[in-house]
Amino acid sequence: MKTIHVNASRQYDVCIRRGSLARCGGDIRAVNGGTAAALVTDRTVDGLYGQTVEQSLQAAGYRTVKFIIEPGEQSKNGENFLKLLNFLAENQLTRSDLVVALGGGVVGDLAGFAAASYLRGVALVQLPTTLLAMVDSSVGGKTAIDLPAGKNLAGAFYQPSLVLCDPDALDSLPEEIFSDGCAEVIKYGMIADGDLLTALKTPLRRQAEAVIARCVEIKRDVVAQDEFDTGMRQLLNFGHTIGHGVELCSGYTISHGKAVAMGMAAVTVAAERSELCPDGLYWELHDLLVQYGLPTQLPYGAQQLLQAAYRDKKRSGDEIHLVVPALRGRCVIRNLTMEEFAVLLQLCDR
Amino acid sequence: MKTIHVNASRQYDVCIRRGSLARCGGDIRAVNGGTAAALVTDRTVDGLYGQTVEQSLQAAGYRTVKFIIEPGEQSKNGENFLKLLNFLAENQLTRSDLVVALGGGVVGDLAGFAAASYLRGVALVQLPTTLLAMVDSSVGGKTAIDLPAGKNLAGAFYQPSLVLCDPDALDSLPEEIFSDGCAEVIKYGMIADGDLLTALKTPLRRQAEAVIARCVEIKRDVVAQDEFDTGMRQLLNFGHTIGHGVELCSGYTISHGKAVAMGMAAVTVAAERSELCPDGLYWELHDLLVQYGLPTQLPYGAQQLLQAAYRDKKRSGDEIHLVVPALRGRCVIRNLTMEEFAVLLQLCDR
Repeated sequence: MKTIHVNASRQYDVCIRRGSLARCGGDIRAVNGGTAAALVTDRTVDGLYGQTVEQSLQAAGYRTVKFIIEPGEQSKNGENFLKLLNFLAENQLTRSDLVVALGGGVVGDLAGFAAASYLRGVALVQLPTTLLAMVDSSVGGKTAIDLPAGKNLAGAFYQPSLVLCDPDALDSLPEEIFSDGCAEVIKYGMIADGDLLTALKTPLRRQAEAVIARCVEIKRDVVAQDEFDTGMRQLLNFGHTIGHGVELCSGYTISHGKAVAMGMAAVTVAAERSELCPDGLYWELHDLLVQYGLPTQLPYGAQQLLQAAYRDKKRSGDEIHLVVPALRGRCVIRNLTMEEFAVLLQLCDR
Repeated sequence: MKTIHVNASRQYDVCIRRGSLARCGGDIRAVNGGTAAALVTDRTVDGLYGQTVEQSLQAAGYRTVKFIIEPGEQSKNGENFLKLLNFLAENQLTRSDLVVALGGGVVGDLAGFAAASYLRGVALVQLPTTLLAMVDSSVGGKTAIDLPAGKNLAGAFYQPSLVLCDPDALDSLPEEIFSDGCAEVIKYGMIADGDLLTALKTPLRRQAEAVIARCVEIKRDVVAQDEFDTGMRQLLNFGHTIGHGVELCSGYTISHGKAVAMGMAAVTVAAERSELCPDGLYWELHDLLVQYGLPTQLPYGAQQLLQAAYRDKKRSGDEIHLVVPALRGRCVIRNLTMEEFAVLLQLCDR
């Protein structure tokens, strides 16, 4: 077992332990004295772990109610957000009760934003079941829903009371979804840890607990410097500015992980061609992406991606903050005008 | 002009000055460097002040867009919240832009929750045009929407960047809506300031600037001790626990101010009968309420109000926190079991 303590505006632990889903009730009881727990999950995850988690919560003395969404990004919408708020109200959850998010990033983001908003905030416990959610969306306090105009356009900064990662859950993950998580893991290596890049040459599944813990630590340390996302935290967006554009252009048929992989590869090519980072970094990244079943080529042209970037929330006024590799295991944030960004997008075309 | 400085998680000023709506652009520009301002208002207020405010914003260099809701509590709903979020996204507001709420509490609460949520938070300026909004909802950082199950059941704690109160706006206020605000003003006297109770025997309209400033100060001082509403701030709920029950039972046909007036009268009667506060306080409150055109009698029985209280968000588990007068100009918070609360409700029957 590994425990990462996070010292944000609320302090909480991220525990990484095999079998933690089956014993979550006791761990949750240790941090929350409420009487009712609203379990939020998707249909697929519910079939795999819903009963296990509910039984553990009930054994710890919680009255449980369950809100099930359809799997997939399209469930992370405003309508489900309102439905979930109404569900919590109809089931008379009070301020001392809690929301338990069991699933991937979609479930965690939606349930998290609802927990942040219901009664202006009730306790939230994250039980991430995908690699992506374990290393990314369950840590750092960002919650969100998508709007028709784009992804994650509304939400809240809201810290959980506890995060329990069960690496056993990765065994039930389809290879595609596992790969998506690998993109974020590789991202952590690129922005903050050359040793992690080296370690990943050994298959991640053989060292899941250690790798997840390292990623959570990196994210924790970046977020600690910038909880409300006004500076340093933008490092975590490596590959995401172009990646979000790819997702938007594809109508969200290309997954987040694949889009981030493409975005990382594109920015790294452009950085190397502009001599902003050492030669050879692109090919190391490329080989890791291929090893983990991830794409490296942009499916859309510069013009299309530029239009998508205009709608990106990371744009402020006419500037865009782009995360660019500077060394192996180190990225920096560059403020580009939209014109400079257009030039850079041309450079990505390979 | 009076300026009250608020030192919350974000620092901001509440300025009370005649004519401030017409010159709001310059004051807003002094605290916000954005390029676009989304004005949120209702149809009635838009007809009175919309153009004045838009012109002032434009003169200060803002691109303006306007979102207009129907007047009334029923507009403070989840659907309008999502519509407003989509409106902000479609108009491509970025993180450095701002939302300007022009109107009463409904507009302020809805626009505030949207500003808190859009891109996880953009700047918010409150231009309250009702007495209630000036002394209550524009100060303290509570934003909310109603859910079918009850009022203010979802929202965020979110501080504005600036609040501009224009007492001239009170002249266009229907007498009914002005009275609603008077209930909250009387509340401030009851919980924190016997001198304010005395002052209110002179008509409020003759001393609007001073009275608004005093109420804002009281609220500021209570909120400063308890921004996230876990203790002291509950004092501001004097009259509200029963008041919310009255609103709920009436299907929100009884206004917030009238309901709070009834709630304050009921709790004060019960407190006096239980010898929790000095004799004579009820009649002083009663006479002030009557002077300002407010009701003093509960229109529903104890059983109905008790059921409504079970759905109140101020309930935690089986306890309810009730604010009860202790001295003239001073209230205390009492934790009652639902049974004790039922007994107290019987005492309110007069």
